[in-house]
Amino acid sequence: MKVFYDETIKKRMSHVKHKIVVMSGKGGVGKSTVAANLAVAFARMGRQVGLMDADFHGPSIPKILGVQGLQPQVSPTGIYPIIAELGIRVISIDFFLPTSDSPVIWRGPLKMSAIRQFLSDVEWGELDYLFVDLPPGTGDEPLSVMQLIPGIDGVVIVTAPSDLSQYVVKKAVSMAQKMNVRVLGIVENMSGFVCPNCGASYNLLGSGGGERISKEMNVPFLGKIPIDPSISEDTDEGTPFIVKHHDSAAAKAFMDIVEKIAKAVEGEKT
Amino acid sequence: MKVFYDETIKKRMSHVKHKIVVMSGKGGVGKSTVAANLAVAFARMGRQVGLMDADFHGPSIPKILGVQGLQPQVSPTGIYPIIAELGIRVISIDFFLPTSDSPVIWRGPLKMSAIRQFLSDVEWGELDYLFVDLPPGTGDEPLSVMQLIPGIDGVVIVTAPSDLSQYVVKKAVSMAQKMNVRVLGIVENMSGFVCPNCGASYNLLGSGGGERISKEMNVPFLGKIPIDPSISEDTDEGTPFIVKHHDSAAAKAFMDIVEKIAKAVEGEKT
Repeated sequence: MKVFYDETIKKRMSHVKHKIVVMSGKGGVGKSTVAANLAVAFARMGRQVGLMDADFHGPSIPKILGVQGLQPQVSPTGIYPIIAELGIRVISIDFFLPTSDSPVIWRGPLKMSAIRQFLSDVEWGELDYLFVDLPPGTGDEPLSVMQLIPGIDGVVIVTAPSDLSQYVVKKAVSMAQKMNVRVLGIVENMSGFVCPNCGASYNLLGSGGGERISKEMNVPFLGKIPIDPSISEDTDEGTPFIVKHHDSAAAKAFMDIVEKIAKAVEGEKT
Repeated sequence: MKVFYDETIKKRMSHVKHKIVVMSGKGGVGKSTVAANLAVAFARMGRQVGLMDADFHGPSIPKILGVQGLQPQVSPTGIYPIIAELGIRVISIDFFLPTSDSPVIWRGPLKMSAIRQFLSDVEWGELDYLFVDLPPGTGDEPLSVMQLIPGIDGVVIVTAPSDLSQYVVKKAVSMAQKMNVRVLGIVENMSGFVCPNCGASYNLLGSGGGERISKEMNVPFLGKIPIDPSISEDTDEGTPFIVKHHDSAAAKAFMDIVEKIAKAVEGEKT
């Protein structure tokens, strides 16, 4: 497959130490929640972090980080990203829509040029990490992101525990492998629910899908995040759950995953 | 927006009484599960049913209906759909992939021509209902389906109960409205969980999103389907949950929704 880097993208990206793509293949597995909380976790560890929302049809990052409705400043040299808490630099199509109901009814080529603009025209500045949140699927957006960003450190792949998710998410692993992009590992989200009242535990959305992908496709397993109603509430309120509910089992599981990613990416260069 | 119908598509579709599109805008809300169970419900009511899986990156219909791995026969006049239980005629990109892990790394124009082929080259025959399961988003696939199929009866829009889902799913409602396609109504899936052990109830994935969309966008609300671990199990096993667990609260809620759709679509013409 032909790989081409625009010169301006190459220049902007040369100021970004690590580029990590969060993808899934399947929607609704909490990919954007994972991407946003990864950005927050690394920012809390003192890193300079950027987060690019490459989901044009369902941009969720601004809502999750509580910066919905803001409008980026534009200068002759480029577009300034919105600065969320902890200095996280965010860009999303959502900032450019007239209303929150407005659908982006775009075919592939338009999405490709928007991704190119997000990479070349945004004043990302010096970053330790740029996270990219991809939409579901293995179509135009992941293809463009993987072709346009030089030196991607790797992809984090999010799945739900069911067989059905596993089946679709494996395609994302295959895609990354075909494109020669390293798979940092699999995160299993929405994994089991413990009734806070009686302690009974349920696999509401199946079980074990993440570990099965990891074994069958020979990629690392990063961990499981249990279902926790407070994650959905925090997400709806625009507060990252790892900050608001840092003592929860879900937040602890998440921080273990963060540690593994940091080690996989930074460990190599120290 | 320019609407063009290929002649062959027009001819094939003239043998289909009702065309219903299932979409969501957001992934992972159970859209494919809803589409497959709608097909099964109408087939059990004695209707001739076809189901076209227009999700190329995450085709789930064959797995949900237990017909994964089968290969359609091809004749000089067209491709024969796979016949699932109750005579449901199914077509999906999944039937044409070398392995279940194979990703379909396609940009938009290729997906458009695949949709065109599914509509023009498949021997759908005489149908009372053709259901189309769309991927998440408001991009190439929904656009092609809405432009190519003449006389769509309407779209059923599936959401999860959270604010975040509501926010993304409203874009799908807007898209249908912009394309002058009738919105049959909103289905809220994954709506609350009652602990089978102690009876405590939880809104695991938020609450009320479906009703809020319905009110704000002035479209009918079709009903709520509660979270039920057996839905995920049945889906993973390839048995529609409305058949295997027809006594469950989820199946009953689903059948109410089916009745409303049948009335909305068939009621008009009687």
